Amino acid sequence: MGGDGVRYARWDGAGTPFRIVTTDRPADLAAGAVLVEIELATICGSDLHTVAGHRPTSTPTVLGHEQVGRVVATGAGAVVCPGDRVVWSVTVACGDCARCTRGLEQKCLRLRKFGHEPITAGWTLSGGFATHAVLPPGTTIVPVPEDLPDVVAAPASCATATVAAVLDAAPALAGRRVLITGAGLLGVTATAMAAAAGAEVTVCDPDPARRLQARNFGASHLVTPDELPTGVDVAVELSGSTAAVAGCLAALDIGGHAVLAGTVSPGPAVALDPERLVRGLLTVAGVHNYRPDHLTRAVAFLAGHHHRFPFADLVGERFGLTDIERAIAAAGRTPALRQAIDPRR
Amino acid sequence: MGGDGVRYARWDGAGTPFRIVTTDRPADLAAGAVLVEIELATICGSDLHTVAGHRPTSTPTVLGHEQVGRVVATGAGAVVCPGDRVVWSVTVACGDCARCTRGLEQKCLRLRKFGHEPITAGWTLSGGFATHAVLPPGTTIVPVPEDLPDVVAAPASCATATVAAVLDAAPALAGRRVLITGAGLLGVTATAMAAAAGAEVTVCDPDPARRLQARNFGASHLVTPDELPTGVDVAVELSGSTAAVAGCLAALDIGGHAVLAGTVSPGPAVALDPERLVRGLLTVAGVHNYRPDHLTRAVAFLAGHHHRFPFADLVGERFGLTDIERAIAAAGRTPALRQAIDPRR
Repeated sequence: MGGDGVRYARWDGAGTPFRIVTTDRPADLAAGAVLVEIELATICGSDLHTVAGHRPTSTPTVLGHEQVGRVVATGAGAVVCPGDRVVWSVTVACGDCARCTRGLEQKCLRLRKFGHEPITAGWTLSGGFATHAVLPPGTTIVPVPEDLPDVVAAPASCATATVAAVLDAAPALAGRRVLITGAGLLGVTATAMAAAAGAEVTVCDPDPARRLQARNFGASHLVTPDELPTGVDVAVELSGSTAAVAGCLAALDIGGHAVLAGTVSPGPAVALDPERLVRGLLTVAGVHNYRPDHLTRAVAFLAGHHHRFPFADLVGERFGLTDIERAIAAAGRTPALRQAIDPRR
Repeated sequence: MGGDGVRYARWDGAGTPFRIVTTDRPADLAAGAVLVEIELATICGSDLHTVAGHRPTSTPTVLGHEQVGRVVATGAGAVVCPGDRVVWSVTVACGDCARCTRGLEQKCLRLRKFGHEPITAGWTLSGGFATHAVLPPGTTIVPVPEDLPDVVAAPASCATATVAAVLDAAPALAGRRVLITGAGLLGVTATAMAAAAGAEVTVCDPDPARRLQARNFGASHLVTPDELPTGVDVAVELSGSTAAVAGCLAALDIGGHAVLAGTVSPGPAVALDPERLVRGLLTVAGVHNYRPDHLTRAVAFLAGHHHRFPFADLVGERFGLTDIERAIAAAGRTPALRQAIDPRR
């Protein structure tokens, strides 16, 4: 395989195999649109949920939304140039609606999401498991330094930018006691960002291997879900566990902030004690998706700190695009937090 | 009565009458302490709860924490001068503890509260139902314009400053849809502040007279607890009702903020849906007490807006200090939101 052909992994729904489809390179790009050749894509946990049939998705589709690539062509007025190495946002915002105009681009009323849309004539190359992608106007595109390893850069558009949004919802972390529940890629990224900001970080995960890995990202205390601390200034919930949500609320000191981002599926309610919230000056905030500036911060953080924290070690194996089935299977099985697809193989 | 004598209303607990005690004017003031002659005090709802035996309080005590007065003497290094007309904070912070040094003066680890402390040899004149008060170092003292009516200025240190803290926990209100539950003094103050900031304000209260009164403070929509709106950007809960807390959470639009300040007594928990909080980018914050800058903002707001909003009409009758029993009885009975004590009568 390889060469200049344009190929994508088409997925038709749970229980069906991926099919590699060859197509023509897009002949002309709309104003502001960008054609990118994908260098490397990583497989997010949400892709695994989708493939397992746990997340409703319109099909056929091109999955994948964590990747790094290089611009090969641009429509008129695009903000990047051919040759630029870039990452780009999951969300594509219209820029005009009531939410966009009040700074809630991440909840645009006409939101489209890269790696989440059904294949249409208008936007076929809409996911990361492909040799190329078309980025419509409204996509945030951020340049990536040439020396940032592809395995480090690829998750910027999902895990890293989401964590940047999460920590943006908390007060400054220097000298603060921070609890992070869930030590997946978001959890270790949050650990590294909080540690780099000068926080004292406690990481909670039921998996001993994940706990130990968090130490390499700056965690100073490691606990099981039965050992959650109290007196915490900022609690960051990234696991999606209802018990962890309750645990984060219970852990807060006076004036504390809990930021929840893990719970993206329906589940049980959590009991909120209004008097404790009021008298404790507590704040509980939810975060979903991220704003354009969070992707910029994500890249800046990775560029500045990837030598200090072993992000590169979090990606297990590199598979070719034709090996996507094996990559998906491996992603659910190995201790590595991500498997990668190198579509040029 | 009257003259230069120093008198205070001593309260010994629920079921006992107030006693007017005459005492000596404090001979020497500690460094930074201030002696104030009280011009007018208003009776807060929490004083009524205390007198009714619903709030545990150390006795004997001098109640009252909403008042305006004039400085008559100062200890060395005080921040105000004799002759200054002032209001002052309920909280007295040490300035040194871990909370004070991180900007949580309102939750000082050695917090004392004006109008809430047992009478001791060290601090007898510690409440507003008196001719004079001693303000220890650590009290926030804010000058009041001479032309601000006493009935408008007196509640600044409780209702107005608390509302300033509540709205400080919300994003900018211009053009936003704001819901306020509870149309007592805090509620109408929040209504006026939000309306002055350019918000579209909906006020909810079960009492028709209170709803109508809220219209004079800038409310554009009036609703009963069964008619709460949806699509709200900022919900402000000031009633303490558990149903209102749940209603404020349910009313929020995507990206919305709920600020809770009414629930200061134990009560039932409220169900919090973590997925809705996360996907809705919702924030829920509790506020209790206030910081020094909130009292400054409170006075500035009243000075700038008391001609536009009828704060002066919210105080019913003026009683002398010796009539405090009648004033307390009237406060629980009349539609006016406050009764006043003029200790110079």
